[in-house]
Amino acid sequence: MPKIVNHEERREQIAEAMWRVILEKGMEGATVRNIAGEAGLSTGALRHYFKDQDELLVYAMRLVNERVEKRAMVILQEELPPKEKVIRVLLEIVPVDEERRAEMDVWFTFQAHIRHRKDLEGAPGHALGAAVSKLFDFLAYEGELKEELDIELEAERLYSIADGLALHAFLEPNRLRADTVETLIRDSVGRICK
Amino acid sequence: MPKIVNHEERREQIAEAMWRVILEKGMEGATVRNIAGEAGLSTGALRHYFKDQDELLVYAMRLVNERVEKRAMVILQEELPPKEKVIRVLLEIVPVDEERRAEMDVWFTFQAHIRHRKDLEGAPGHALGAAVSKLFDFLAYEGELKEELDIELEAERLYSIADGLALHAFLEPNRLRADTVETLIRDSVGRICK
Repeated sequence: MPKIVNHEERREQIAEAMWRVILEKGMEGATVRNIAGEAGLSTGALRHYFKDQDELLVYAMRLVNERVEKRAMVILQEELPPKEKVIRVLLEIVPVDEERRAEMDVWFTFQAHIRHRKDLEGAPGHALGAAVSKLFDFLAYEGELKEELDIELEAERLYSIADGLALHAFLEPNRLRADTVETLIRDSVGRICK
Repeated sequence: MPKIVNHEERREQIAEAMWRVILEKGMEGATVRNIAGEAGLSTGALRHYFKDQDELLVYAMRLVNERVEKRAMVILQEELPPKEKVIRVLLEIVPVDEERRAEMDVWFTFQAHIRHRKDLEGAPGHALGAAVSKLFDFLAYEGELKEELDIELEAERLYSIADGLALHAFLEPNRLRADTVETLIRDSVGRICK
């Protein structure tokens, strides 16, 4: 018997096919035909799940966000010191392996694309800044932050470091080493904590 | 008499027209027809200066780099303390005004595009990392760096901060304030100097 795949699972598979096409060919290659081919569907079958390319685009972007958020939530519920939780959440966002590198590549490609798509509704913005702010609130609540810290400035710095590293993993995948990323994240969080 | 424009000046004008089209419409809109229209030329006349869109693309990318480098060279030759020179060079790269913001927007759009253009020859890579390394060498030579600094780690941190800020000015132009950028750059350079 063939595996029964429900509607939502199929939508996720199509979004993942879109990610793979983008990684291979960029947004220019992310046509409905190419995505359907990658997903092993006809274009007609794909349209059963998404009425047009824009609906798929917004869904595929939201799915990147959701996956990252889910991984972050799992870490925050683990039995770990607060500082270690924050470090590990940041390491989930900054790509240190192939899977996360691909995710960031897709994410930047999406963001570059939607800059010039003012007609597109419902596309998620860049959410990392809000996430870093929440991590700061968490560290403050746990009493981990150093006294007399300029919190706004330090949040902006950590946010810049995290996204700068993510960008470099995207633009210079062969140069930036995973251990350098981890050392820099650990050191940068260490400096704001007691 | 009409102003006489030489060959190289005309090429620069066409590249600047390409930047404006990209800012308005993204890479998808950067067709030869649109660029020629923006430059006030026929497509035939444009082809007199660039044989195809790729030659123009590579030229327009190199021109962004050249302009930033020239501004950096001017600052480095000014009568300023070494630390102040480094801060001002970084502020030339990180967009704090409309002109630099547009430059960075064009730059990221180019970089996102060429990720998937393995056939394209001669496109410049992301040169900021090498520039930050040179700024560190300069500070070391001038005896400005703190003792016992992990130079590799600190260069990676400053590079991430600069590019993270540049990325945020690109993705969140309405959120990130110019004075926040300047405060963070000044503070981050201050921490590595005596």
